[in-house]
Amino acid sequence: MKKQQAIRLSLPSKGRLQDTALSFLSSAGLSVFKPNPRQYQAEIPALPELGVIFQRPGDIVVSVRQGSVDFGITGIDVIEEKRGSSGDILLLHDALGFGHCALTLAIPESWDDVPAVPSLKQFAGRLGHPLRVATKFPILTERFLNQQNIPHILITAEGTLETAPTIGYADIISDLVSSGQTLKDNRLRPLPDGVIQPSQAALIANRNALQTNPEALEMARRLLEYIEAHLRAKDNLLVIANMRGETPEVIAQKLFVETSVGGLQGPTISPVMVRDAKQKWFSVSVVVRCDYLSQAITELRNIGGSGIIVTPVTYIFEEEPPRYKAMLKALK
Amino acid sequence: MKKQQAIRLSLPSKGRLQDTALSFLSSAGLSVFKPNPRQYQAEIPALPELGVIFQRPGDIVVSVRQGSVDFGITGIDVIEEKRGSSGDILLLHDALGFGHCALTLAIPESWDDVPAVPSLKQFAGRLGHPLRVATKFPILTERFLNQQNIPHILITAEGTLETAPTIGYADIISDLVSSGQTLKDNRLRPLPDGVIQPSQAALIANRNALQTNPEALEMARRLLEYIEAHLRAKDNLLVIANMRGETPEVIAQKLFVETSVGGLQGPTISPVMVRDAKQKWFSVSVVVRCDYLSQAITELRNIGGSGIIVTPVTYIFEEEPPRYKAMLKALK
Amino acid sequence: MKKQQAIRLSLPSKGRLQDTALSFLSSAGLSVFKPNPRQYQAEIPALPELGVIFQRPGDIVVSVRQGSVDFGITGIDVIEEKRGSSGDILLLHDALGFGHCALTLAIPESWDDVPAVPSLKQFAGRLGHPLRVATKFPILTERFLNQQNIPHILITAEGTLETAPTIGYADIISDLVSSGQTLKDNRLRPLPDGVIQPSQAALIANRNALQTNPEALEMARRLLEYIEAHLRAKDNLLVIANMRGETPEVIAQKLFVETSVGGLQGPTISPVMVRDAKQKWFSVSVVVRCDYLSQAITELRNIGGSGIIVTPVTYIFEEEPPRYKAMLKALK
Amino acid sequence: MKKQQAIRLSLPSKGRLQDTALSFLSSAGLSVFKPNPRQYQAEIPALPELGVIFQRPGDIVVSVRQGSVDFGITGIDVIEEKRGSSGDILLLHDALGFGHCALTLAIPESWDDVPAVPSLKQFAGRLGHPLRVATKFPILTERFLNQQNIPHILITAEGTLETAPTIGYADIISDLVSSGQTLKDNRLRPLPDGVIQPSQAALIANRNALQTNPEALEMARRLLEYIEAHLRAKDNLLVIANMRGETPEVIAQKLFVETSVGGLQGPTISPVMVRDAKQKWFSVSVVVRCDYLSQAITELRNIGGSGIIVTPVTYIFEEEPPRYKAMLKALK
Amino acid sequence: MKKQQAIRLSLPSKGRLQDTALSFLSSAGLSVFKPNPRQYQAEIPALPELGVIFQRPGDIVVSVRQGSVDFGITGIDVIEEKRGSSGDILLLHDALGFGHCALTLAIPESWDDVPAVPSLKQFAGRLGHPLRVATKFPILTERFLNQQNIPHILITAEGTLETAPTIGYADIISDLVSSGQTLKDNRLRPLPDGVIQPSQAALIANRNALQTNPEALEMARRLLEYIEAHLRAKDNLLVIANMRGETPEVIAQKLFVETSVGGLQGPTISPVMVRDAKQKWFSVSVVVRCDYLSQAITELRNIGGSGIIVTPVTYIFEEEPPRYKAMLKALK
Amino acid sequence: MKKQQAIRLSLPSKGRLQDTALSFLSSAGLSVFKPNPRQYQAEIPALPELGVIFQRPGDIVVSVRQGSVDFGITGIDVIEEKRGSSGDILLLHDALGFGHCALTLAIPESWDDVPAVPSLKQFAGRLGHPLRVATKFPILTERFLNQQNIPHILITAEGTLETAPTIGYADIISDLVSSGQTLKDNRLRPLPDGVIQPSQAALIANRNALQTNPEALEMARRLLEYIEAHLRAKDNLLVIANMRGETPEVIAQKLFVETSVGGLQGPTISPVMVRDAKQKWFSVSVVVRCDYLSQAITELRNIGGSGIIVTPVTYIFEEEPPRYKAMLKALK
Repeated sequence: MKKQQAIRLSLPSKGRLQDTALSFLSSAGLSVFKPNPRQYQAEIPALPELGVIFQRPGDIVVSVRQGSVDFGITGIDVIEEKRGSSGDILLLHDALGFGHCALTLAIPESWDDVPAVPSLKQFAGRLGHPLRVATKFPILTERFLNQQNIPHILITAEGTLETAPTIGYADIISDLVSSGQTLKDNRLRPLPDGVIQPSQAALIANRNALQTNPEALEMARRLLEYIEAHLRAKDNLLVIANMRGETPEVIAQKLFVETSVGGLQGPTISPVMVRDAKQKWFSVSVVVRCDYLSQAITELRNIGGSGIIVTPVTYIFEEEPPRYKAMLKALK
Repeated sequence: MKKQQAIRLSLPSKGRLQDTALSFLSSAGLSVFKPNPRQYQAEIPALPELGVIFQRPGDIVVSVRQGSVDFGITGIDVIEEKRGSSGDILLLHDALGFGHCALTLAIPESWDDVPAVPSLKQFAGRLGHPLRVATKFPILTERFLNQQNIPHILITAEGTLETAPTIGYADIISDLVSSGQTLKDNRLRPLPDGVIQPSQAALIANRNALQTNPEALEMARRLLEYIEAHLRAKDNLLVIANMRGETPEVIAQKLFVETSVGGLQGPTISPVMVRDAKQKWFSVSVVVRCDYLSQAITELRNIGGSGIIVTPVTYIFEEEPPRYKAMLKALK
Repeated sequence: MKKQQAIRLSLPSKGRLQDTALSFLSSAGLSVFKPNPRQYQAEIPALPELGVIFQRPGDIVVSVRQGSVDFGITGIDVIEEKRGSSGDILLLHDALGFGHCALTLAIPESWDDVPAVPSLKQFAGRLGHPLRVATKFPILTERFLNQQNIPHILITAEGTLETAPTIGYADIISDLVSSGQTLKDNRLRPLPDGVIQPSQAALIANRNALQTNPEALEMARRLLEYIEAHLRAKDNLLVIANMRGETPEVIAQKLFVETSVGGLQGPTISPVMVRDAKQKWFSVSVVVRCDYLSQAITELRNIGGSGIIVTPVTYIFEEEPPRYKAMLKALK
Repeated sequence: MKKQQAIRLSLPSKGRLQDTALSFLSSAGLSVFKPNPRQYQAEIPALPELGVIFQRPGDIVVSVRQGSVDFGITGIDVIEEKRGSSGDILLLHDALGFGHCALTLAIPESWDDVPAVPSLKQFAGRLGHPLRVATKFPILTERFLNQQNIPHILITAEGTLETAPTIGYADIISDLVSSGQTLKDNRLRPLPDGVIQPSQAALIANRNALQTNPEALEMARRLLEYIEAHLRAKDNLLVIANMRGETPEVIAQKLFVETSVGGLQGPTISPVMVRDAKQKWFSVSVVVRCDYLSQAITELRNIGGSGIIVTPVTYIFEEEPPRYKAMLKALK
Repeated sequence: MKKQQAIRLSLPSKGRLQDTALSFLSSAGLSVFKPNPRQYQAEIPALPELGVIFQRPGDIVVSVRQGSVDFGITGIDVIEEKRGSSGDILLLHDALGFGHCALTLAIPESWDDVPAVPSLKQFAGRLGHPLRVATKFPILTERFLNQQNIPHILITAEGTLETAPTIGYADIISDLVSSGQTLKDNRLRPLPDGVIQPSQAALIANRNALQTNPEALEMARRLLEYIEAHLRAKDNLLVIANMRGETPEVIAQKLFVETSVGGLQGPTISPVMVRDAKQKWFSVSVVVRCDYLSQAITELRNIGGSGIIVTPVTYIFEEEPPRYKAMLKALK
Repeated sequence: MKKQQAIRLSLPSKGRLQDTALSFLSSAGLSVFKPNPRQYQAEIPALPELGVIFQRPGDIVVSVRQGSVDFGITGIDVIEEKRGSSGDILLLHDALGFGHCALTLAIPESWDDVPAVPSLKQFAGRLGHPLRVATKFPILTERFLNQQNIPHILITAEGTLETAPTIGYADIISDLVSSGQTLKDNRLRPLPDGVIQPSQAALIANRNALQTNPEALEMARRLLEYIEAHLRAKDNLLVIANMRGETPEVIAQKLFVETSVGGLQGPTISPVMVRDAKQKWFSVSVVVRCDYLSQAITELRNIGGSGIIVTPVTYIFEEEPPRYKAMLKALK
């Protein structure tokens, strides 16, 4: 029996993109709560001023463009296809780290003569009819094919594109490709220089909302703040090791010469009490990048570390998020 | 390890329309066999020369139009939206008796001042912006609104339209309506004179295929033959009653005066042997329309019928199917 | 966009009882069409004046009793539990032939001293507390236990009863039993004389509706007519054999001496034309009970039958349905 | 609370084979009723003396072989793999008409040098190790490869075989192939002469049970009787046409000259009463093979047939089933 | 093959309440392990002395009341409906923070004259029959309506209540309401003063078990200890920032003047070693409430904090849990 | 469009073992990412050099044995059944802590005379035929029964074994048992001394790969490193308490006398700044075993601890993993 919030964020309404978007937000401390599974509305308890609705990816872009919602998370593919030229859509964050794919030209495996886009033009000339290209992204595909001077007919489709060449619906396709496995299963081959638009999930906003509604602007700041701090945290781990040593300074010197644990601003060092009063032990805390963890453990052991505890962190806040500053600049 | 058939029929690939289409064909003796549930291909054992593929409704129209398949079963709604003006699509049968719905304008229930389409124009004038109409049928909707001189902006959508007015995505919608319950659940009201296109499932063919490929023409004849005979059979029942009487003629006279069983060309009458040789009994077979069954039973009882057996029939073949003749005429 | 029908039938809203009820009606020529899977409303195209709603079994009884719907199909178990003493519920047909089960007392297998109900009383005396009986049918169970003079406490339950004795929720249960397998899986044993109420699906009506609404009365007649004709048809098959013989009378005499095909009013006999004009063949049609089919085939072969065709029938109408007459009497 | 039947039939417990087996039996008038979806036991109301259990295909063969069940329906593939040499398994019916597939050798598409089995041996010689063949049918595969003198190692597998060559689990596979699509999806190619065992569903029995238990023998007769009558009926239709003519003999003569309706023993002909007493009409019933239906309709029309009704039949019983006689002979 | 535990906790057996209860316990370090998905029994590895069973919400209350289980987690709604007046149920924790809803009177939207409960009485007077109220909570609803002096008939229901007014099963309903969306979808309106019982999940115990079984009492202490510590932890975050400063005391002073990070007992401060020995850095750890996080980050930045790490905690234990003390008092 | 990795790990492809294996790896920081749900391939972003494939448990063992994959995680049950005697399989870690079960002999409950294995032999003697033992583990079962000198016939099965004795497929079974509930449901009893092989999930490797491929050896080290550090971490919690005291040494002395928090190498102690400068507070961090948490909280409170924060850790690295050293030794 909540009243509807004034500021709204639109999220993908189904499929893998919805799952990963919800799981991304949840791990960033912004869990989405949907009171009724059949409803298209939800809320984020950590941001009570923000209403959430669920829409199909393309409808999200249209909604943000025309201002019926303020924010949206969807793929760069549909953003570029549907953003238009009005400048109403502002790209707040273009690398949320999930939903990776690429709009790509793919041709039948059997077209041996077509290793890359340039030979496509020649090959198409021999078909006896203009190259028929099935796609759900007519604007981006049209622009790309025109830039390459390839005569063609675009054929839009509702269903799966990968079967189009086999059933004769089209000659080639322009489709989203992630692992490439679906193409392979259907005996299609992506052209190495046929990437029309690389994509991943992005956060967009309606320009006018940010310019005229201070609450929307503050919401943009908080969303960016949390998202950036979380993306930073996701790639790092907090490592706490016990080390024997005379003084914190001595231990720090040892750490400074190691690559993986020595490059930071400085380790936090606290005394550890042991029964044998003659021994001096200290606890050393450092933040380490996930992909250096194995190396860091080895280095810490090498300089006497033991009982090394590792734990993830939810956020690492540095200074004001650069993307927020970029946004402010874009709004002027 | 079958080879691919030369003539092809495209069927809806999912949802209720697929279910009803498959069940319709099956009850017409044309069961579709799908060797592999994940495949988009199938066959009809009773028509071994015909290959079956599954596509989304709109893609079926495009496929038939461009000739990549020869026949298609899909809704009149998408046929009209996507058939274009080239005349490549021939409507072989426009009333298959399932998939009923209507493309209809629907407005928020709260618009009390708009009882019908004419007042919509006035009301829209007061909105302060052109009427925003969300639809998945831009061509039919555009044509209709232009005919009515209603200024508007069309907004296409990927997801459900019914929530569009509530979330502010559009002001009204032009959507497919069957029972009207979904509209009602979303507090929308269909306009009584807002029916843009009534629809049900139809059988279409590619004109050129029929004109140039005699096998496709023969397939068209057989499809129409089976479908018409089945549609006729579906509405009738075979009724067999035992009746006492001196001669077949006497019994026939009794039948001829009854409304529900007397209007046919004539009942089949065969003798029934009974132990008591003095009694004369006959078996009377007539075909009765389903909706007259109850009346027919009463009338048969009234003139002495008993032990009345009722059984459905699969086909009733009359003379050559009229739609086949219509098709031949359209092909000239 | 249909308007609501004035006369209504309530059907079970879920589970096996819904499935079998819908399949029973469908095979009786009364298919139920649900325009929207989420809705609780439906219609029967063959009976357009009748609206259908879906409710839980017990709610069906309450609805018919208070007259908010006119007809209901549900189990005799809940009918007897909830019909009350007002006489508002009329049992039109008490043997629809599906949904068989029985409300039965079941005890732990380990109670070796309790072979039957009489010993239950003694055994319960030794428990140290009144016998705790978990049930979802308190009225029927209470009545039964009181008749048997067994001191007890009834414990109602929302969830599965079969685990109640194991988890200590009750000592014994009074539950619906069909195959008895669930009891066995939970190490319970039904008492052979513990059947409180045998049950199967039944058709009920609101007495007042039939007395005051002629359309409801006519609907009752038609429902009973179709249901009885179908139940009769379900157990019989139409058998058509070719037989050689001089005259129909000679063939009939042969049939009359056979048990399975000779007991009917009389076979229908029609001439069969053969190329060899000297041979005389006839086609013999008889209705045979399903469970005598094997015998009938043997007998027909014995007297020269060949090319025996067997086909089911949908209805066998005899005279006015006896249950309809019984209903009329009960209404006076 | 039924007691367990003495004679038992084992059916496949899951997947497509279960679905088609149940649907086959149901259409043959032998519907299987499973009181409890979780149970492995069921019954066939039309054959109350027969108990049904559900097992995996291979376990069915073992059960019939060792006599723990009397009858089984499963694929010829597993029957041949597991029947052993003891002669305990009797193949009552080897063509139930569903579950078609073939145990086949399949190799990677890329092995261009291997068009057929003979070249496989040469190719394998170049691998540097014995040919590794993954299969779930080691006995049949071993026998086939030995007959072909192909050195090899058999590798049994629990999971899907089609991925085995790709992930390096084996070089080639010996697997069940129906449409061939799964092989194609995994870039494998069946060898045209690599069919080790063609298969479809079959009915088997334990020899000893039939020899010693007269009830089992009678059950074998009834199962074969029903199954053969149904398989015959499935391929035919009952066609009833009205025809004008002076006498039945005249009409019969017209029919006898037509290919599709004239080849039978003889049509059943009954008089049809019409209002205009001067016209003479007759009803003609013939049984027509499904695949000649279209031709039969044309021919009937040509000789004046109209109002042609077509209906399927459930059984066509001819003389005692030949397979039953074959069985009796095998039992001696 | 574990033996059954002596002390038992009953949890909801299905639906959202089960999901949230399991997830609540899991996040409180008390994950429930269910060895067999079909079983109604489980265990909590962290509390090996405690057995878990699953029951329907109402059966949980009955089980705890009669002592067949010792503890239960279920909604306050059913607790109040079914706890009876015996005092056997002790409410250990009445705010577990999930399962929020409220038993509420709801009327048709169209009853414009009824803004609140007082006008309901007048309106009901005009119905011509006593107000029919459908509910699954007869005791609470009866008590409420009697307190308001509203004449009525209670109608219990098995299925969904929200459709009751539409199908004429009742006039109004008394039902559980969470988001209110289901009511709205069914055109019902909750009465603002019609809240009969607010509810959320609660932990209950059997009084007698706690009084007589010391192990149960100790289990109550541990459950409350873990639950309270977890509920406290859920609303807080551990924040660790690096700050430059001469001494810990100087840094602490800066913190003490800030609202969001200065109100606690005191920050933990440890030295941070940096390469440039002239700089003095410290690591500051504070616990911050989740809803102040954004403010805390801003304040820490303002006083020179950087590299701010944020991580959740599982438990925050303060002194002995107050609810445990309350329980001990209630037991006397 | 990744290229395939050279080193590969095979994981279970379905069911509970897959779920728990994936969840185990994920909680150990080694989340598996499957780009396409239908594919059998995946990757672990934290170990980019490692490819993942999914296979059935037994196929994993075969794959590792013949070297087509390098590493596998599967149950000890199938490892022992299928490892053979070649020594190609190296057991790197035999206690991953999930997938616990035991291959066990189970007999019908009704065999009262058979309390244990020794009496089984006698009892079997009375059966009149050799004891029929159904199993999916013929090698282990054969070996066990031979050791016990029990004459028997092994019967392999594809489907569930638990029903085998009931349907007469075998006399007893040798099957995997976890909770024992399934046996109990089928009225079977595990023999207390009939445990043939205890099992849980284990990590195996191909010996040759580790001996010849340094990258595989390094991968083995990292897998063991992460797994051991995670298994250690899973059983411990980081506990941080605030305590008042004059000096760290005084506080440490108090801790050293407590059982649950005093047994470690030493607590980390850092000063806490409070507003009242006269009070001296310290923050104390210790690692505590999960099952001592409750005791630890009590002890910390007893010596003045308050505001006790508890948080889990992901890894605890001690010295080089002992299992890695064991592996190196085994490789020589």
